[in-house]
Amino acid sequence: MRIGVLTAGGDCPGLNAVIRSVVHRGLTGHGDEIIGFEDGFKGLLEGRYRPLDLNAVSGILARGGTILGSARLERARLHEAADNAEELCQTYGIDVLIPIGGEGTLTAARMLADAGMPVVGVPKTIDNDISATDRTFGFDTAVTVATEAIDRLKTTAESHQRVMVVEVMGRHAGWIALESGMAGGAHGICIPERPFDPADLVAMIEERFARGKKFAVICVAEGAHPIQGSMAYGYGEIDAYGHERFMGIGTRLAEELANRLGKEARPVILGHVQRGGVPTAYDRVLATRFGWHAVEAAHEGAFGHMTGLRGTSIEMVPLKDAITELKRVPEDRIREAESVF
Amino acid sequence: MRIGVLTAGGDCPGLNAVIRSVVHRGLTGHGDEIIGFEDGFKGLLEGRYRPLDLNAVSGILARGGTILGSARLERARLHEAADNAEELCQTYGIDVLIPIGGEGTLTAARMLADAGMPVVGVPKTIDNDISATDRTFGFDTAVTVATEAIDRLKTTAESHQRVMVVEVMGRHAGWIALESGMAGGAHGICIPERPFDPADLVAMIEERFARGKKFAVICVAEGAHPIQGSMAYGYGEIDAYGHERFMGIGTRLAEELANRLGKEARPVILGHVQRGGVPTAYDRVLATRFGWHAVEAAHEGAFGHMTGLRGTSIEMVPLKDAITELKRVPEDRIREAESVF
Amino acid sequence: MRIGVLTAGGDCPGLNAVIRSVVHRGLTGHGDEIIGFEDGFKGLLEGRYRPLDLNAVSGILARGGTILGSARLERARLHEAADNAEELCQTYGIDVLIPIGGEGTLTAARMLADAGMPVVGVPKTIDNDISATDRTFGFDTAVTVATEAIDRLKTTAESHQRVMVVEVMGRHAGWIALESGMAGGAHGICIPERPFDPADLVAMIEERFARGKKFAVICVAEGAHPIQGSMAYGYGEIDAYGHERFMGIGTRLAEELANRLGKEARPVILGHVQRGGVPTAYDRVLATRFGWHAVEAAHEGAFGHMTGLRGTSIEMVPLKDAITELKRVPEDRIREAESVF
Amino acid sequence: MRIGVLTAGGDCPGLNAVIRSVVHRGLTGHGDEIIGFEDGFKGLLEGRYRPLDLNAVSGILARGGTILGSARLERARLHEAADNAEELCQTYGIDVLIPIGGEGTLTAARMLADAGMPVVGVPKTIDNDISATDRTFGFDTAVTVATEAIDRLKTTAESHQRVMVVEVMGRHAGWIALESGMAGGAHGICIPERPFDPADLVAMIEERFARGKKFAVICVAEGAHPIQGSMAYGYGEIDAYGHERFMGIGTRLAEELANRLGKEARPVILGHVQRGGVPTAYDRVLATRFGWHAVEAAHEGAFGHMTGLRGTSIEMVPLKDAITELKRVPEDRIREAESVF
Repeated sequence: MRIGVLTAGGDCPGLNAVIRSVVHRGLTGHGDEIIGFEDGFKGLLEGRYRPLDLNAVSGILARGGTILGSARLERARLHEAADNAEELCQTYGIDVLIPIGGEGTLTAARMLADAGMPVVGVPKTIDNDISATDRTFGFDTAVTVATEAIDRLKTTAESHQRVMVVEVMGRHAGWIALESGMAGGAHGICIPERPFDPADLVAMIEERFARGKKFAVICVAEGAHPIQGSMAYGYGEIDAYGHERFMGIGTRLAEELANRLGKEARPVILGHVQRGGVPTAYDRVLATRFGWHAVEAAHEGAFGHMTGLRGTSIEMVPLKDAITELKRVPEDRIREAESVF
Repeated sequence: MRIGVLTAGGDCPGLNAVIRSVVHRGLTGHGDEIIGFEDGFKGLLEGRYRPLDLNAVSGILARGGTILGSARLERARLHEAADNAEELCQTYGIDVLIPIGGEGTLTAARMLADAGMPVVGVPKTIDNDISATDRTFGFDTAVTVATEAIDRLKTTAESHQRVMVVEVMGRHAGWIALESGMAGGAHGICIPERPFDPADLVAMIEERFARGKKFAVICVAEGAHPIQGSMAYGYGEIDAYGHERFMGIGTRLAEELANRLGKEARPVILGHVQRGGVPTAYDRVLATRFGWHAVEAAHEGAFGHMTGLRGTSIEMVPLKDAITELKRVPEDRIREAESVF
Repeated sequence: MRIGVLTAGGDCPGLNAVIRSVVHRGLTGHGDEIIGFEDGFKGLLEGRYRPLDLNAVSGILARGGTILGSARLERARLHEAADNAEELCQTYGIDVLIPIGGEGTLTAARMLADAGMPVVGVPKTIDNDISATDRTFGFDTAVTVATEAIDRLKTTAESHQRVMVVEVMGRHAGWIALESGMAGGAHGICIPERPFDPADLVAMIEERFARGKKFAVICVAEGAHPIQGSMAYGYGEIDAYGHERFMGIGTRLAEELANRLGKEARPVILGHVQRGGVPTAYDRVLATRFGWHAVEAAHEGAFGHMTGLRGTSIEMVPLKDAITELKRVPEDRIREAESVF
Repeated sequence: MRIGVLTAGGDCPGLNAVIRSVVHRGLTGHGDEIIGFEDGFKGLLEGRYRPLDLNAVSGILARGGTILGSARLERARLHEAADNAEELCQTYGIDVLIPIGGEGTLTAARMLADAGMPVVGVPKTIDNDISATDRTFGFDTAVTVATEAIDRLKTTAESHQRVMVVEVMGRHAGWIALESGMAGGAHGICIPERPFDPADLVAMIEERFARGKKFAVICVAEGAHPIQGSMAYGYGEIDAYGHERFMGIGTRLAEELANRLGKEARPVILGHVQRGGVPTAYDRVLATRFGWHAVEAAHEGAFGHMTGLRGTSIEMVPLKDAITELKRVPEDRIREAESVF
C-alpha cells in the first residue's frame, strides 16, 4: 500500500509521534510505502512531498512540532482538492491519505472522503474538544504545562499575598482550564461552557482572606466570558491611536478583580508554551496508538473514519460523528472540581 | 456524616490528592466530619486517628506520599478487625470508612464490608493492574518518571554505542514497561504477561547494529521472565558467604545480552523513584475525582463498592469485581507497541 | 545567640532554603535560638514573629515562596526602624538580624547597620543584578523556567513558521534574557544594557527566512528598549476610556516586527512563573550555603556585611559594595551569545 | 582557519552545545571551516570526519549525547597519534584541534600539544573533578537529575517510614553526592574524600526515629568507602558459579544499615540517567561559552591551554594545570552541608 500522511492546523505535541507510528507500522508491519506531504493540504495540492522511511522518523518520537510542517488552507483551495480527489490520488499513487488535524482538518478530510478519496483521519487538538474520542493527544501536555505554571504561581501568590489570574488555552471548550485548575488547585475556574459572575469570585476571595488564606489563584480559559453586564471592560477597545486593541479575558478579569477587591491582581497569559515542546508520556502513547490503528484501518478499508479513544481501546469512528458537535465540559465535570465557576 | 479515611499499602503519587478531595467534598459539599486513621488499618485497630479539616489538607494536592502514613497489616489482625467491624464503627462514630489502597487493601475492604462495615473503596496502584477501572492514579506518574529516564538513557546509548536495559516496576503486570517503553521508544519490551526469549532481543539488536544503529534500549518489567531454559543466570543465587543474593531481571538480562552479543550492556534499575514525589497533572485530576465520588457514594449508601474510571466517567463498581482478577496487558496492546516482546 | 531572620521584597525561589539553613546551622551548630519575623520589616516593626525550630523548617527546602511571608515597607517606616535600632534589638532580645532580600532590602539593612543594629545580609534577586556576588539564588530557577518555555516555543515556531517574541524578567539588567536566550538558542536577545534596533532583528529574520529557516525566536528582557525613534508604539497609551494602558516591550516588539515583516509575530509574556515554585538544585545549594555562612558571620561579628559568591567560595562582603551599583551585563558576555542584540 | 573538533570519553550533557558553539563562532565570527572527527581520537587516527556547517549543528543545543560519537582509545594508539602529530594536521589540513573531554582526553590533548599539534582543550566531566575550572558542564545536569530522584524518594521514605540509600556518580570525587545531597536535604552524605563510619549513620538515623522522624535518606557517591573494618560486606564477591560479582557501595551500605538498624533499608542506584539527556540551562550556557572561547583561543594561538570557568569569566588555563591533580571536595564544603559525613 502507498500511504500519504500530512499534518494540518495549529501545533500540538504528539504530531511527530503519529507520523513515526504510521511509518513504523506501515513499513514494518505491512511493507507499505509512506510519503509525507509538506505544510498540510498545501503540500497535497502543490505536489510537495517526500518519502518517509525509518531513518526519516528516527528520533522524532519525543520532539515537539511536526517534521512535515503545517499550514492553514483556504476553503476555496480545499474545494479544488475535493473536485480532483481521485486525480490527486492517482498523481501521487497513494491508496490512502492520513490527515492528522483538528476540527477544520477533519471537516476537510470528510469532504475529500465524500469526493471519493480513501481517507483515514487522526484527530488532534490540545483543546480536547473533538467528539467521538475520550481524549486527544496534546491535551495532556497542555494541561501539564499549565499545571506546572499554576504550581509555581501558587507559592508566589501565597507568600506574597497575591491574587493571580492564569489564562490558559481553550477558545470553545474549557477542558484545559478545568483539568489544570483541578490539578493545580485553583480556587476559581472560568470556562466557556458556563458564563461566570465576577461577584462570585470576589466573594470567594474575600471569604478566603477572612479566614487567613490571603491569596487566590483563578484559572480562566481564553474563551471564558462573564455573564452579560457583569464586567466593566469590553473585549476589543479603540486606543488613542485609533487601533483596536484586543485584551484577553485574563487581563480583563485581573483588572476587574483588582478594582472590586482593592488589591493587586496579576494576570499571567500562558500562551503558546502550552502547544509546543516535548509531549508527555501519555500523549506519546496515545499518538503512537492512533498512528498504528490508522494504518490498520487503511488496510481494512475503513475509509471516512478516524481513530478514537474509547475507554482503553482505540476504535474507528465515522468522521461525521467527530465534527458535528464540539465536545464541551459537561455539568457533572464542573461539579467535581469543587471550585468557584 | 462522619467519614473515616485511611491509606494502606505501598506509596503511590496521588494519595494526598484523594485525601484532600474527600475532605473538601465532605466538608464543603455535605457538612461532613472527616477523620483520618494513621498508618493504614493499624491506626484503625489501634485507635490512632486525627480530625481532618481544610487546614489539615492545605497544600498537599501536589505532594507525594501520604500525610496519614501507611503500613502493612498482618492478615490475622485484619480478621480481628472484621470480627469487630460494627464495634469499630461505633467506637469511632464513623458512618463510613474510605480505605485507599491496592489489591490487598481492597480485599481487606471487602472483608470488612462483608462483616457489616459501611465501606467505600478507592483503588490505588502505580502498576495499573486493578480490574474494573480503566486506570489508577499513580500509574501516569510512574510511566512519566520511567519515560524521562529512558529519554535520558537513549541519547547516551546512541552517542556511546551502548545497549541499555532499564528495569521498571510491575511485578505481575507489565503496564509501566509497556507504556514507558512505547513513550520512550524502547526497542524491546519485556513484560510478565509474555515470557521473552533473549534470542529475539539479540536478533533485533544485531539487526540494528547491522544497519548502523549502534545502540539499543530494552525496557523490562521487574516481573518479566525468560522462557524456560533460555537464560543462564537464575533468580536467587548463593554467594560465597552462603547468603542468597537476589538478582533482578534487569541485571540478569544485561549480563545475558552482554555475553551473547560480546558487547557491553548496562542495567539501570529505576526502583522507588517511580512511586514517590509530585504526581502528574493527570494523576491529580483522577485522584481528586476518585475522592469526590467516594464521598458521593458514601452519601448514596453505595457501600461495598469502589470508584472506577470507565471512559471519561467515574463509576462505582463492586469491590468483588476489582479483586477477583488482576488486569494484565492484553495481546492487542502488545501488538501496538511495534517493539520486540 | 538569638538570631532574627526575615524575608523582604519580591518572591524568589530559594528563600525557604536560606531560612532552613539559618535554623539548621544556628540550632545544630551553635545552639542558637532563632526567631522569624513575619512579612519582612513590617513584622519587625509590629512585633510579629515566631520561634523557628527544626520542625518549623522541616520539608521547606524545595518549596517556593517564603514561610515567613514578605511585604514592601514604606521608606518612612524604615527610618522609624533605624531610629529605634538598638531598642528593637532589646525588645526582641536578638543579637543579630539576618534580612534576606534584594537591593531595597540590603539598602535598608545597611541603614539599620549604620544605626547600630548588628545585621548580616543575604542577597536575593532572580535578576542576578546585585554587585559583589557572582550569582544570586533564584536566578538559576528563573533562567531554567524561561529556557523551558523557549524550548517549547521553538518547536512550535519551527514547524509552524512563526516569529515568537518571549518577554522575560529583568527590569534593569538583562541577565535572565541573556542566559535563557543563550540556553534556548534564541536568534535575537534584547537587554536593557544595550538599546536595540528593530531593523537589526528584521534583517536577521529575513536572512534566516531566505536560507530556509522559516522561524525565529527573540528573547527580550522586560526592561529592554529600542534606540530612540526606532519603534512606532510608545510605552503607555491612553485608551478610549481615558486610562493609561501599559504595553510591555514584548507585545510592542511583536507588533513592530509583524508590521515590518508582514508576517505574524506572537508575543509570549512569561511573567510571574519565573519567580515562583520549586527552586533548582543549584539555587537550593547556593541558598543553603548563604544561610550557613550568614550564621557563621554573625558569630564572628561580621556585621554590616552580606554573603557573596566569589568563584567557588562564599565570602562576606560589605553591604555598601553590594548596593552602590547594579551589576549589569558586560559587553564581553553579550559577544559570547552570538545572537543579534 | 580550519578547526578540527572531537568528543571523547563518557557521555556528558552539553557536548553538543560545545560543538554547536565552536561551529557558530568559527563560521560566523571568523569565517573558519570546521570538521568534526567521529568517535573521538579514533576518528582522528582513522580519518573519519565530516564537515560541520550551521545546518549540521541545527537543533542540537538542547540534545544530550554527542552528534560526533565518542569512544575510548587505547594508550598505544594515542602514542601513535602523538608520533605523527604534525603529519595528522597536514593530512586533514587543520590548524587547530579542539578535543572536548575529561581527564584522560585532556592528558591526551597535552601529549599531542607537546608533540607539536596546535591544541585547545575543553574540559568535560559530570563529576566536576577537573582542576583549574570552577565548574564543568554536565555537572549541573547530573546534580539536577540526582536531586529530582532524592525529592521523589524523600516523600516515599517519609510516608512509608523507610531508610533509603541513593547511590550517585562520583568515583574519585564526591561533588555530585555533596550538591545533590544538600539540594535534596539528605540526612547523610558519603563521599570518597572522607571515609565514613556506618556507626555515625546508624546513630543519626536512630536519633531521628527517636524524635519521631521515622525515615532517612542517605546520599552516597559510588566511590565512597567505609573506614577500614567497619562494614561486613566486601566489594567484589565470588558467587556460587565462581564469578566475581561486584556490589556497589549503595547496595552494600543499605544491607549494612538494615542489619544494624533491624529495619528495611532500600538502595536506589541512579546510574546512567545522570549522564544522559537534555542539559540544564546552566550547562548549556557554560558549554556554549567554553566553545566560544576555545575558538577565540585558537585564533589567538593559545595552544596547550583549555577553557576554564573562574568566577564569572572564562579564562584559558594551561592543560598541565588541569590534569596534575583531581579537584576534590574540600573540608569547608563538607562542613557547610550540615549532614552526617
